[in-house]
Amino acid sequence: MADHLVVFTPSGRRGRFEEGTNLLDAARSLGVDLDSVCGGRGICGRCQVVPGDGEFAKLGIVSRPDHLSPWSASEALYRKRKGIAEGRRLGCHATVCGDLVIDVPPESQVHRQVIRKEAEARDIAIDPAVRLYYVEVDEPDLARPRSDLRRLLDALEREWGLAALAVDTHVLHELQRTLRAGQWTATVAVHDGAALTAIWPGFVDAACGIAFDVGSTTVAGHLCDLHTGEVLASAGAMNPQIRFGEDLMSRVSYVMMHPGASGELTGAVRECLDTLAGELCAGAGIERETVLEVTLVGNPIMHHLFLGLDPTELGGAPFALATDESVRLPASALSLRLNAGARAYALPCIAGHVGADTAGMILAEAPHEGDEVVLLCDVGTNAEIVLGNRERLLAASSPTGPALEGAQISAGQRAAPGAIERVRIDPATLEPRVRVIGQAAWSDEPGFASTQVTGICGSGIIEVIAEMRAAGILRGDGTIDGGLQARTGRIQPEGRTFGYRLWDGVTITQNDVRQVQLAKAALQAGARLLMDHYGIDTVDRVRLAGAFGTHIDPAAAVAIGLIPPVAVDRVSAAGNAAGTGARIALLNRAARAEIEAVVRRVEKIETAVEPRFQEHFVAAMGIGESEPATAGTRRTRRRER
Amino acid sequence: MADHLVVFTPSGRRGRFEEGTNLLDAARSLGVDLDSVCGGRGICGRCQVVPGDGEFAKLGIVSRPDHLSPWSASEALYRKRKGIAEGRRLGCHATVCGDLVIDVPPESQVHRQVIRKEAEARDIAIDPAVRLYYVEVDEPDLARPRSDLRRLLDALEREWGLAALAVDTHVLHELQRTLRAGQWTATVAVHDGAALTAIWPGFVDAACGIAFDVGSTTVAGHLCDLHTGEVLASAGAMNPQIRFGEDLMSRVSYVMMHPGASGELTGAVRECLDTLAGELCAGAGIERETVLEVTLVGNPIMHHLFLGLDPTELGGAPFALATDESVRLPASALSLRLNAGARAYALPCIAGHVGADTAGMILAEAPHEGDEVVLLCDVGTNAEIVLGNRERLLAASSPTGPALEGAQISAGQRAAPGAIERVRIDPATLEPRVRVIGQAAWSDEPGFASTQVTGICGSGIIEVIAEMRAAGILRGDGTIDGGLQARTGRIQPEGRTFGYRLWDGVTITQNDVRQVQLAKAALQAGARLLMDHYGIDTVDRVRLAGAFGTHIDPAAAVAIGLIPPVAVDRVSAAGNAAGTGARIALLNRAARAEIEAVVRRVEKIETAVEPRFQEHFVAAMGIGESEPATAGTRRTRRRER
Repeated sequence: MADHLVVFTPSGRRGRFEEGTNLLDAARSLGVDLDSVCGGRGICGRCQVVPGDGEFAKLGIVSRPDHLSPWSASEALYRKRKGIAEGRRLGCHATVCGDLVIDVPPESQVHRQVIRKEAEARDIAIDPAVRLYYVEVDEPDLARPRSDLRRLLDALEREWGLAALAVDTHVLHELQRTLRAGQWTATVAVHDGAALTAIWPGFVDAACGIAFDVGSTTVAGHLCDLHTGEVLASAGAMNPQIRFGEDLMSRVSYVMMHPGASGELTGAVRECLDTLAGELCAGAGIERETVLEVTLVGNPIMHHLFLGLDPTELGGAPFALATDESVRLPASALSLRLNAGARAYALPCIAGHVGADTAGMILAEAPHEGDEVVLLCDVGTNAEIVLGNRERLLAASSPTGPALEGAQISAGQRAAPGAIERVRIDPATLEPRVRVIGQAAWSDEPGFASTQVTGICGSGIIEVIAEMRAAGILRGDGTIDGGLQARTGRIQPEGRTFGYRLWDGVTITQNDVRQVQLAKAALQAGARLLMDHYGIDTVDRVRLAGAFGTHIDPAAAVAIGLIPPVAVDRVSAAGNAAGTGARIALLNRAARAEIEAVVRRVEKIETAVEPRFQEHFVAAMGIGESEPATAGTRRTRRRER
Repeated sequence: MADHLVVFTPSGRRGRFEEGTNLLDAARSLGVDLDSVCGGRGICGRCQVVPGDGEFAKLGIVSRPDHLSPWSASEALYRKRKGIAEGRRLGCHATVCGDLVIDVPPESQVHRQVIRKEAEARDIAIDPAVRLYYVEVDEPDLARPRSDLRRLLDALEREWGLAALAVDTHVLHELQRTLRAGQWTATVAVHDGAALTAIWPGFVDAACGIAFDVGSTTVAGHLCDLHTGEVLASAGAMNPQIRFGEDLMSRVSYVMMHPGASGELTGAVRECLDTLAGELCAGAGIERETVLEVTLVGNPIMHHLFLGLDPTELGGAPFALATDESVRLPASALSLRLNAGARAYALPCIAGHVGADTAGMILAEAPHEGDEVVLLCDVGTNAEIVLGNRERLLAASSPTGPALEGAQISAGQRAAPGAIERVRIDPATLEPRVRVIGQAAWSDEPGFASTQVTGICGSGIIEVIAEMRAAGILRGDGTIDGGLQARTGRIQPEGRTFGYRLWDGVTITQNDVRQVQLAKAALQAGARLLMDHYGIDTVDRVRLAGAFGTHIDPAAAVAIGLIPPVAVDRVSAAGNAAGTGARIALLNRAARAEIEAVVRRVEKIETAVEPRFQEHFVAAMGIGESEPATAGTRRTRRRER
């Protein structure tokens, strides 16, 4: 029998195949990544390929679409039912009858990539922990008695090479009905290649997962298609635990003072997660039982509470976590009403103050994969700080307090419409211009007139302090220069100190400046401490994560000395890195092993027991410690806007 | 430093050890089986050994008790608290200071044997799936942050070599409290060397398990000490499913006619199991949470019902089991309120009519380990029949009907006080003597006079038929010889046939004889069918299991042709083999792998599709088919009583 040369692109793998070999078999025999859920039955359409048409000189082949067998009945039926793009064939039914160049488009690959938009972000390879397999199961036979499960497992081994599978009890309960309802065809979900966790009659193609980011204030969820990696829906909600205390420590105190209250907080956040799951499914138009997988990140206290672990120990030294392993459990154990076989995966915490959210940030930013020494900061009431590269990684948490989130600032508020987020002060007149959230125009531009200004948010605070220092309103030690009263009515006495009236109702007081000084000194000192441990004076790159990190002006951050001196173009926002980490762990099971391994080798630095932390803290209290060169770069960039 | 020769008995392993080496370390370095739960801390007392005193010529050693270090404070404390037998030492604290012969008594070995009383029974090696480990866990340390779980796992790896353990979620929930309550000491339970399933503060020594035998009529449980293998308590209860139907098929019919009723039957039997568990624990004076392990056997319908599987498919051809794998699940999934980490193990079913009870019987009788071809029968409404040896094993179920259990017999009843179980008929006078359950005396002996006779049970039926045949009352074709009316008033007309009046109110009718003929023909035909498949005409040994098998007179069984011809001394009772199998699977984890492997290679014969079954059935209808030699043996034996 004649044989023909087939070259698959983009892999470049090639081989000679007998006439009549189908492309799926050919691809598999060469290890070419070509997807299939239905096992080559022309049902799933995952194995679509594009035969080349023309002379491929470099490959030394003339490929023609008619070097494939004519359209089969199965292909025609598939096209009629679901449609198939011009020029494409089903790899499982098109057979070789001449030399061919066969292109496997990205969506036909099992190990697709999700391209992330952010310039500095790494792509996500799609390889979820759960996969679907379609099988045709033998009918029961009196003369050769084998149980329903045995025949199913035999089919899975025969068709998919899956052996030694554990079987969820609920699958056993559904097995008889399902096999009969599907007339001896079924689709199963297999977790980690090891456990049969769900079963449906007939062919099923939809598998979804939810990545949850459980913050103290807000809880966010992203519903993803586990096949494409696409985010089908996103939703957020206030963390209902707020009724037990606004910040983390007040919630831990509540638990300490109310024995058993830990369960109440757990119940509250789990109910919130379940409600969010419902909203996400409704938003994407899918059933809850399509969700097979959940991942979660959160700070140590949120992590403990959603897992039902008492957070009391995290409220005081030695801040012992109950576990710093990743936690795998049925999603039902978190009271999530999803598919009965859905699994939950909580990323590992790192230390008492450095949680699974930081693990998520590491996964998203991957400092452990590069040579550059990167400083990652996620700033909230505490700043989680990670420093390092492929050689070493260090992590610490620094008690920045709530100032950088706009709290404990006289006119501070959360980042919400009406909050001042951008500030420029004319060094000559000391007159400010501002921009507020929800209004694109600056205060001196048309359209701003009727805008209501309600306060100033965290990034606005940083910027106004930087501008006050640049304009000479602030001295290097952080005091407001009362002598400037002579030049502008905006400098006003406030008791024994002075304030700068930024806007009607928004005055930056001496105390506000002190709060920001304390916060930024804590962040800087934490970073410095890690740099000491690493044995370096400068870092190659700084990534600021979280809401604060996203809104802050990198130039202002450098200017006031929030972070160690670095060229401003080396500072960038990482977005919601923790949530991205949860999404990566959802879509790629190797990422789970990766973060588990990385977390174990992270060097945990406890700021509270390091005398040098205090030294760094005191040294970092001044404002504008950055090197002149960096400051110069900053001004250049800022004028460009 | 001096070194000394130490020989351990009974293993005979020997080595030279430096002065000061403790015996536990010495034993371990030689691979000697010496137990320890506390890891050598002098707490558990499991490592007790006996130093030899005298000259051991064959070993070439003079051993003296004072070749061990003087009593340590720990040993003295242990003796004071728990006592220690004269001449014994704690292996973990007694150190070598001279040549020694050290005997490891059976109770100090990890892999002890449970000696079974039955002559033909194999012993059980104690090696349960769950083991306890005592550990001392590092306290949390601010300067070296590791979670509670990490420190526990580190200790388990350091002290016990246990690595890569999975952790039950409930253990995670109890972890913080337990470690602190035990002041950083704890005992953990590890299942299959792979999963941490329970944790207690401090040192704990008690681990129990329950072997359940779930019959259609009665449910029995045996509570065992997982360390010694000892049965601490046994209890039985009526299966409450009886309210849904007395026999199996009527229960399946109930489920078929009442959609959802499967759950009711499941609930009923699980509640029964849980109540029984409570009674067993109360009887042995232990807490429910001491029970870490449960095993279960039952026929296919009972098996499906206690697992919550719908038995409907087992009610008709092709009799497909939902699963023929063993089933491992948390005991809580069966609504058993035991230790939160307790596991349940259901032995595998074999075919639609051959259940986990038969698997248990195989495990208890181990026909697959011998060269003799053994026929195992467990007779109930169906007879489960297993035939074979280490070469091949075959299994079938034969529909014997209820006659052999005393049902559908005019004066039949269950084996209970008042039931005739033994019969002798004088061939000369045709007068019977009987013995009834609950009364040791025969009817012609003193003490019988006031005994109430209420009916006849299964083994009595067999015996009366055998005696009627031997006395000539029954012809070979099973008809009652009406001509004998002339000789005795005990032969009476019953319509167009005759009956034999065995006792007041207990007449053996022609129909009774027919019922027994049908039943015994079915059993014989099933056995013959398996023998055909195996290609043999005779078997080496017959073992009769279950209540019927225990009470039946082997000679009578041979005499009426209940089983294929075999010398009567090759027929014996196996007792409750299914229950014993459950107990073996409870005490020895290797037995689980063993029965799983054996069951897979059992050849399943479905009597319903074998034309030869019908031929054998017809051929086996006559009574007294046994060979004369066998019958002779029988008479000899019976006269001895």
